[in-house]
Amino acid sequence: MSKLFAPRRTVVQVEESAELAPKFDAGGLIPAVVTDHGSGELLMHAYMNREALELTITTGEAHYFSRSRNKLWRKGETSGLKQRVRELLIDDDQDCVWLRVELTGGASCHVGYRSCFYRRVPLTSGGGPVELEFTESDKVFDPEQVYTGQENPTRL
Amino acid sequence: MSKLFAPRRTVVQVEESAELAPKFDAGGLIPAVVTDHGSGELLMHAYMNREALELTITTGEAHYFSRSRNKLWRKGETSGLKQRVRELLIDDDQDCVWLRVELTGGASCHVGYRSCFYRRVPLTSGGGPVELEFTESDKVFDPEQVYTGQENPTRL
Repeated sequence: MSKLFAPRRTVVQVEESAELAPKFDAGGLIPAVVTDHGSGELLMHAYMNREALELTITTGEAHYFSRSRNKLWRKGETSGLKQRVRELLIDDDQDCVWLRVELTGGASCHVGYRSCFYRRVPLTSGGGPVELEFTESDKVFDPEQVYTGQENPTRL
Repeated sequence: MSKLFAPRRTVVQVEESAELAPKFDAGGLIPAVVTDHGSGELLMHAYMNREALELTITTGEAHYFSRSRNKLWRKGETSGLKQRVRELLIDDDQDCVWLRVELTGGASCHVGYRSCFYRRVPLTSGGGPVELEFTESDKVFDPEQVYTGQENPTRL
């Protein structure tokens, strides 16, 4: 048990106290929601293990756990697109964290867009297949140049 | 397979095309990040199953899957605190959705706060336990009145 985290004892402790008692799932992970500190835009949704959360708290640089590479992931170690944490929050039952970050390089998505959320799902009354709408027209960088020789992390 | 969703065939299709091909995890769920359409504030992090995502798209009202109650959850069915979806987005590898919503009732957290993320984790160089800082001073509603007789969904 890390010295930073308290054990989870009661619902009142978890929801109403000042003790940091994060819940990691069966795979040892907690989801992390990452927004741009300036614009408020949602940049990405990732996961942390215990070590990644500790390193994020103690260094102020966003660390995650890469499920596709199955290892600790210091954001930007390959791409240079780092995230400096301006504010870190945790939710009511302490099973999710929220990072408000400053981007280095103006992008955080491996496909090359600023945000990972570059497509809108139109609301529809049903029927046929949904057609997504692109919300970012241009990529910020060319992923083939930035990630030369790296495997694409997307899994089908 | 729903008529709204396409099968996941290739990485290029999933990342670069206009086809909606969401990925549900081994438990049949996809995480949903929910922000306030006006303020941009992160309100909650929840999960949807296939039916919840279909109903959200076709009704414009946020539906989730409650892991604690193990059933479809139309947001607000107990509390009256509904979420009207103003914009729905999906991420690069289509394993997470982002809902930008309008709140009914001014709150979305079962503890009574506006946002579920009402505590800040201070960055620290390490050492002893972290002491959380409350970012909302007052609850919007009294959960004991709103959820009389309902079990608290928080699990240790």
